[in-house]
Amino acid sequence: MSTIFETKLRVRYAETDQMGYCYYGNYAQYLELGRVEALRSLGFPYKDLEEQGIMLPVLDFHIKYLAPAKYDDLLTVKTIISEIAGTRIFFEYEIVNEESKQIATASTTLVFVSKENMRPVKAPEEIVNSIYHAKK
Amino acid sequence: MSTIFETKLRVRYAETDQMGYCYYGNYAQYLELGRVEALRSLGFPYKDLEEQGIMLPVLDFHIKYLAPAKYDDLLTVKTIISEIAGTRIFFEYEIVNEESKQIATASTTLVFVSKENMRPVKAPEEIVNSIYHAKK
Amino acid sequence: MSTIFETKLRVRYAETDQMGYCYYGNYAQYLELGRVEALRSLGFPYKDLEEQGIMLPVLDFHIKYLAPAKYDDLLTVKTIISEIAGTRIFFEYEIVNEESKQIATASTTLVFVSKENMRPVKAPEEIVNSIYHAKK
Amino acid sequence: MSTIFETKLRVRYAETDQMGYCYYGNYAQYLELGRVEALRSLGFPYKDLEEQGIMLPVLDFHIKYLAPAKYDDLLTVKTIISEIAGTRIFFEYEIVNEESKQIATASTTLVFVSKENMRPVKAPEEIVNSIYHAKK
Repeated sequence: MSTIFETKLRVRYAETDQMGYCYYGNYAQYLELGRVEALRSLGFPYKDLEEQGIMLPVLDFHIKYLAPAKYDDLLTVKTIISEIAGTRIFFEYEIVNEESKQIATASTTLVFVSKENMRPVKAPEEIVNSIYHAKK
Repeated sequence: MSTIFETKLRVRYAETDQMGYCYYGNYAQYLELGRVEALRSLGFPYKDLEEQGIMLPVLDFHIKYLAPAKYDDLLTVKTIISEIAGTRIFFEYEIVNEESKQIATASTTLVFVSKENMRPVKAPEEIVNSIYHAKK
Repeated sequence: MSTIFETKLRVRYAETDQMGYCYYGNYAQYLELGRVEALRSLGFPYKDLEEQGIMLPVLDFHIKYLAPAKYDDLLTVKTIISEIAGTRIFFEYEIVNEESKQIATASTTLVFVSKENMRPVKAPEEIVNSIYHAKK
Repeated sequence: MSTIFETKLRVRYAETDQMGYCYYGNYAQYLELGRVEALRSLGFPYKDLEEQGIMLPVLDFHIKYLAPAKYDDLLTVKTIISEIAGTRIFFEYEIVNEESKQIATASTTLVFVSKENMRPVKAPEEIVNSIYHAKK
């Protein structure tokens, strides 16, 4: 069973393109907001993680665009931490608009790395525990 | 057999993040440059396409980040038009740095839509022909 | 006397650069959020304005960076509509962080233009009236 | 007498907004490209500067938008180093399009700071000399 974390955001004018839609490249930022708020909800602000010497670069990113998002749309990013194992953490996302219409679905794989030498490190135990606890 | 189109670009300071790497969301722009230059090489500037009432939104985007890109790195985006069929066009990409190190591989699916009603339309025949000709 | 409109936002990871600060070019988006929310508060969502055939491009933009904004900082954009006259509207801004430290001050001039021919038009009377009413 | 450094760039699709123009906030990146190439021409890649422990944050930025830039426009950023004195360096810019139409004029003030403690430091002497030499 998975906990769903929800974050809301509004499409900025800067994020539209001349097609009149939110530019496809901007969704990566929306997903970042989703996973950062998911981690914050679990008690692990990403900022603190970096201050402890751990970074979380993205290894893999896949997104399907199902319907356009438009300027000033209030979007909800629904984030699930689908797995945390070894040095990696997997997120799944769904973005919906105010009419609950599905805008996009996506998934990302991130890796815990040491800030010092940029090499993969095991996921911090307190995060692993917290995620398993939230999933129960 | 496929034709490979190459575009060069430099990572901008604005595109780095505090990890010291190019932010993962900015690659979508690099791929856009790759496919736009591929179409331009075939004689179809994307701008003209839009002026003729056809737009090319992205339906699906997948990227693997293999090595970080850094500020001021001169990257080469290698683009292949892997298929054009019906209303869709498929691109594959490889991004390498100056040391020929692979930075990322990616693929996208785009759909030809009419600007008027935003509905899918068949790929313009002259583009289809031009791509088949280039592949020979 | 002027009404101050306040909007809050968090600095995104994407908005930092390798200096570890929010990139200087991203503040333009923050100010946009400030003025859009100011207009919304007065009952004029910018989206509606565009749907009525009026756009508001920026003519002039000036900003002083007083202290860095960092990742995850919760910023407040304080916006004042300093004047509306003829075809133009003038905004002034102050950005502060959670410790009420001044991050930046800025000003912009925007012009009302007709979407049809992109020529300047008089500021809509109901907006002018609403602003004068709010200032009292 | 001042040396003018010229850099060319193409407006990306991602940089347009639904007005059909280049978003006003993106010009900050174009000016960054202008001054970085100006410094590179003088023999001082900004990257090397940072590696030597010196950063150049922006203190002040002013821009006038004179005509819209559109998707795929090939712009020229003309950059002048107007002054270097004490801890500061002043740039002036003009952006023109392919028809030599003036798109924008701008100016920025930047400050040399030590990466270690983020405090202002004197402009490196070899840069000062090189600029004075170029101006002759």
